[in-house]
Amino acid sequence: MNRILFEKEEVRGGIVRLDDFRAWHVLDVLHGEVGQKLKTGIVDGDIGESEIAEIDGRSVTIAVGAGRPGPAPWIDILLAPPRPRVMKRLFPQLAAMGAGRIVLVGAQKVEKDFWGATMLKEENLRPLLVEGLMQAGTSAMPKVELRKSFRRFVEDELDGAFPGSVRIVGHPSSGRTSIPSGGRKLLAVGPEGGWTGAELEMMERKGFLPVSLGERILKTETATIALLSKLME
Amino acid sequence: MNRILFEKEEVRGGIVRLDDFRAWHVLDVLHGEVGQKLKTGIVDGDIGESEIAEIDGRSVTIAVGAGRPGPAPWIDILLAPPRPRVMKRLFPQLAAMGAGRIVLVGAQKVEKDFWGATMLKEENLRPLLVEGLMQAGTSAMPKVELRKSFRRFVEDELDGAFPGSVRIVGHPSSGRTSIPSGGRKLLAVGPEGGWTGAELEMMERKGFLPVSLGERILKTETATIALLSKLME
Repeated sequence: MNRILFEKEEVRGGIVRLDDFRAWHVLDVLHGEVGQKLKTGIVDGDIGESEIAEIDGRSVTIAVGAGRPGPAPWIDILLAPPRPRVMKRLFPQLAAMGAGRIVLVGAQKVEKDFWGATMLKEENLRPLLVEGLMQAGTSAMPKVELRKSFRRFVEDELDGAFPGSVRIVGHPSSGRTSIPSGGRKLLAVGPEGGWTGAELEMMERKGFLPVSLGERILKTETATIALLSKLME
Repeated sequence: MNRILFEKEEVRGGIVRLDDFRAWHVLDVLHGEVGQKLKTGIVDGDIGESEIAEIDGRSVTIAVGAGRPGPAPWIDILLAPPRPRVMKRLFPQLAAMGAGRIVLVGAQKVEKDFWGATMLKEENLRPLLVEGLMQAGTSAMPKVELRKSFRRFVEDELDGAFPGSVRIVGHPSSGRTSIPSGGRKLLAVGPEGGWTGAELEMMERKGFLPVSLGERILKTETATIALLSKLME
């Protein structure tokens, strides 16, 4: 945890009182004392430095300092979700790496029961994303959207949702490994079994450029991080 | 699993008989039938295509076909290991991404009890690496070495072990994000708590170039994959 984040509603009159895992982190990892400065931020708000105002047993009261905007998201992701267990690890990493919108799409090889995963409930999903932001030291919360129909999303919604984006689709057997620079990126990552030919065609018609990571075939989790890293500028 | 690998000792007279998880994969995932071709390889040997010769209940006999050399490793890694649970996930990914030698070094912030992890025993480690190779479709087994003394390894052994290598150390607060091209790479990845100043100095004296992935601070697992991806050419 490289920055402690508060939800907007938690801050009242410039003060926030913690008694959850963040308080433990302040006390046990950072060895917090009254007067000590902490790197903090408000989810979807500013990041900055705050001061420990009071410690009462396992509770920590923090005086929230002035802030500045944190790093802005720089990429959006169209993801055919892997199994929930993998997705649970991937969400924090996507948040940490600076994803803006994450659209989970129902490509043909996505397991049908994925959409019922308890992880997708707002109360379970949000902590995964906050975890990633606290790790990275940023505060801009990714927006997660679910679209079970791949075709409907790509044909009817995509152009309106991501106008003017530079579109890249990860595809192991594509020859191209270089990536166009500039512009807001939209990265599409396929399911464990790969995209179908029809899905790839639909995306190519919408301007997606197939990009390969080389001759090695990587798991969704590894490939997603590797592609994001390649797209970073 | 994108390629089924055999150990050299398993192949006798051009034939291998499987009755472990690889047989299940052939039967249940690939719906194998006699005469069907499979992508196969020999660990630290050739990759190629083989044919199912016989199916007997849950046993599969395969006639191993002619092969060609698979993709060669292209990078070596000096890694201050994260917790065993994370390392267990990282090993297959390092193998999949093409690591040649993986030297685990005892940087100051590596947990002391790491070196006793059962995962490090040859019989537990090898399957993790084979898993990564089968995922990637390659066959060159990374060599894993343990060096508990960071100083002794860097000062006395490194130059002899990795002569003429292009050396890069991941360091979040370094300003440099570009990476020199060409040459066999040696990538150093720090522990969860970061390198100490003394460790960084020792590496810089040995020609390691500090490289940052930007202002976001990533977990070891994510950072390692992201750095490997940036170094791929």
